[in-house]
Amino acid sequence: MLQSHLFTKTRKEGPKNEVSANANFLIRAGFIHKEMAGVYDYLPLGLRVIENIRNIIREEMNALGCQEVSLSALQDPEIWNKSGRWSDDVVDVWFKTKLKNDVLLGLGATHEEPMVRMVSEHVRSYRDLPLYTYQFQTKFRNELRSKSGIMRGREFLMKDMYSFCRSEAELDAFYDKAALAYKKIFERVGIGDRTYFTFASGGMFSKFSHEFQTVCGAGEDFIYIDEEKRIAVNDEVMQDDILKSLGIERSKLRKEKSIEVGNIFKYGTRYTKELGLNFMDEDGNEQPVINGAYGIGLGRLMGTVVEIFADAKGLVWPEAIAPFKFHLIEIVGGGDTGDSVRKEAIELYDKLNSNGVSVLYDDRDLRAGEKFGDSDLIGIPWRIVVSSKTGTDGPYEVKNRKTGEVKMVTLNEILEL
Amino acid sequence: MLQSHLFTKTRKEGPKNEVSANANFLIRAGFIHKEMAGVYDYLPLGLRVIENIRNIIREEMNALGCQEVSLSALQDPEIWNKSGRWSDDVVDVWFKTKLKNDVLLGLGATHEEPMVRMVSEHVRSYRDLPLYTYQFQTKFRNELRSKSGIMRGREFLMKDMYSFCRSEAELDAFYDKAALAYKKIFERVGIGDRTYFTFASGGMFSKFSHEFQTVCGAGEDFIYIDEEKRIAVNDEVMQDDILKSLGIERSKLRKEKSIEVGNIFKYGTRYTKELGLNFMDEDGNEQPVINGAYGIGLGRLMGTVVEIFADAKGLVWPEAIAPFKFHLIEIVGGGDTGDSVRKEAIELYDKLNSNGVSVLYDDRDLRAGEKFGDSDLIGIPWRIVVSSKTGTDGPYEVKNRKTGEVKMVTLNEILEL
Repeated sequence: MLQSHLFTKTRKEGPKNEVSANANFLIRAGFIHKEMAGVYDYLPLGLRVIENIRNIIREEMNALGCQEVSLSALQDPEIWNKSGRWSDDVVDVWFKTKLKNDVLLGLGATHEEPMVRMVSEHVRSYRDLPLYTYQFQTKFRNELRSKSGIMRGREFLMKDMYSFCRSEAELDAFYDKAALAYKKIFERVGIGDRTYFTFASGGMFSKFSHEFQTVCGAGEDFIYIDEEKRIAVNDEVMQDDILKSLGIERSKLRKEKSIEVGNIFKYGTRYTKELGLNFMDEDGNEQPVINGAYGIGLGRLMGTVVEIFADAKGLVWPEAIAPFKFHLIEIVGGGDTGDSVRKEAIELYDKLNSNGVSVLYDDRDLRAGEKFGDSDLIGIPWRIVVSSKTGTDGPYEVKNRKTGEVKMVTLNEILEL
Repeated sequence: MLQSHLFTKTRKEGPKNEVSANANFLIRAGFIHKEMAGVYDYLPLGLRVIENIRNIIREEMNALGCQEVSLSALQDPEIWNKSGRWSDDVVDVWFKTKLKNDVLLGLGATHEEPMVRMVSEHVRSYRDLPLYTYQFQTKFRNELRSKSGIMRGREFLMKDMYSFCRSEAELDAFYDKAALAYKKIFERVGIGDRTYFTFASGGMFSKFSHEFQTVCGAGEDFIYIDEEKRIAVNDEVMQDDILKSLGIERSKLRKEKSIEVGNIFKYGTRYTKELGLNFMDEDGNEQPVINGAYGIGLGRLMGTVVEIFADAKGLVWPEAIAPFKFHLIEIVGGGDTGDSVRKEAIELYDKLNSNGVSVLYDDRDLRAGEKFGDSDLIGIPWRIVVSSKTGTDGPYEVKNRKTGEVKMVTLNEILEL
């Protein structure tokens, strides 16, 4: 993409009312726009990051055999009354609205109830199970305060997956596979090394639920890490008998601030019983379906990456989710008319594009310092400079945004990166 | 995809409370689920159709130089008060909700106001223009009645594009290009021959706006078609002086029921003046930006296709947006154990997949009649039957869902289809 064509501009300062570092950087770099506290728009660069994250998650969900759907935001009170979650006293983040005839509707903060009802229209017998559904869907949560940028929005995109099994054993086996898929997602996004499979309290059906917690100073949670075992526990689980059952020694635990980037939960029959999702087993007996749920907030994941990797100069994107892999910058020197530099840059831009390499080409008529400043702020992993010093087909000066390492490389070496 | 893996089941009857033909067919075939009147979920087959439509639109928007963004559903009253559209008396389809502190918010029924405000943070001078933004975004409209299935939802996915220009001439030129892109979209989706560029009243800034109206008995609109000119006018424009200015003779017009599948509109400075979106022109004078808007409802477009092409047996999808291109059906005969048929079918399925051909493979243990009935209802363009009569590498019996034509073809001929 030509940067002269990109409509967003960088800015020196974020908005005064923005207290979170992630939103501040993302607004300054033109990735997002703030509509109000906890409500953000995604602009072209930000949307490219979200789409990259979405594609990684989608690949891993499909590999698990999950089927993609898209449920509505508007919620029918009937099913939430059945599950006992319609009341604002039970779910304190409801946004509610009204039809013209004054009938109250909700805006989905989560989707267990409608997913279970929808699935119940397609399940009769044990032959119809197991099945796994997922969606990328906007959630609405009426948070009292919203000060964490895109990490805790009042409106945000979530991947929520739901498993429907015939037995606890079938759920357990799938749950373990889903946990591995989550591990892979966080590794692919670039935060695997600081993300811990974390034991949290489990509710009625299972002893534990599990969170994926990423160590980060901007986190709202605390976890206690057993580095040797690569697992962690949260506050709820910090009891001697529970730690013992997990084979964890309290003295070895390291306390860290962290962000919950994913959670997985065995509901069992919690929602299926209440909403009547049953199946006929092999012996002809009607049984409730055994259910689990698995969530990842895409904005929260993106915000976590920002908080972890950004430095004093701006954003730093891991390659897998960066809006572009290369930032091609043409620099026209003092006495230079720029014609030959531009010709070189366009040729390289065309070659990268025709090789399927994503590249943002800064073709703007600006001073080198401004271009480099913008480039650091936007945070694309590899910067290539084309100037009057560059020969045909290179070598080109390539700089790594994260390490600052600079090297001279040929076109072929760039394509191999 | 293996049909045994697809979790949705077909059904003989749609829900009793569903009065629209499109939703009825789509529910029976397992493409959508009804949450409540005017609110539908998209299930795997339906979501594939929506994604195909989305990709066609995205390609045409990108070819116009438009940049994709994603704005929030939650709406800040401040900007809608500025434009005079916050009141329910002015916009009668608002859904409104409240923050915990009782501040009212809206749910976006359209996005001119937030788009104009967002863009105003990135435009200073004539050098920043023109620019074009678009999004695929969920709209919420509190319709009094909602009886047209996915053609008029209370919640629906819309592509809305916005143009920001320096002059009326620049807007006019882009508007004409956008109209051509729309024409191409409707042609690619498969309804070009019955879709008419239709003159509608234009509001304050321009004499006309334009609708793309598709002739269909299930339509809620009426248009008057000049077949020779391939244009139409709507009720508002049926006045002798206006017809004359368009060079249209009333006596030549044919009245038809139709569905508005797209609309394009020159707003001029209607929103930019009110929200302060100005630019500095080449002479250093501040000018309001000249704005246009261009909408297509994806569900409405999908519903229109259903209404037009469905027959007594079920859905009929045009190839470009069909959930799969081929429906591979294995039929195990009377004395047959099925092993050799299944082997043949799996081999063909693998060959089609490895050639990048999308195929739904009915590997279920059902009678031929049930499989054919489901296949007709789901409406995939080409049906391939593998039975004990099929030899290795064919020839295969292939049937066209739309025309009913049956022919025997080889694998290579299938790949060429």
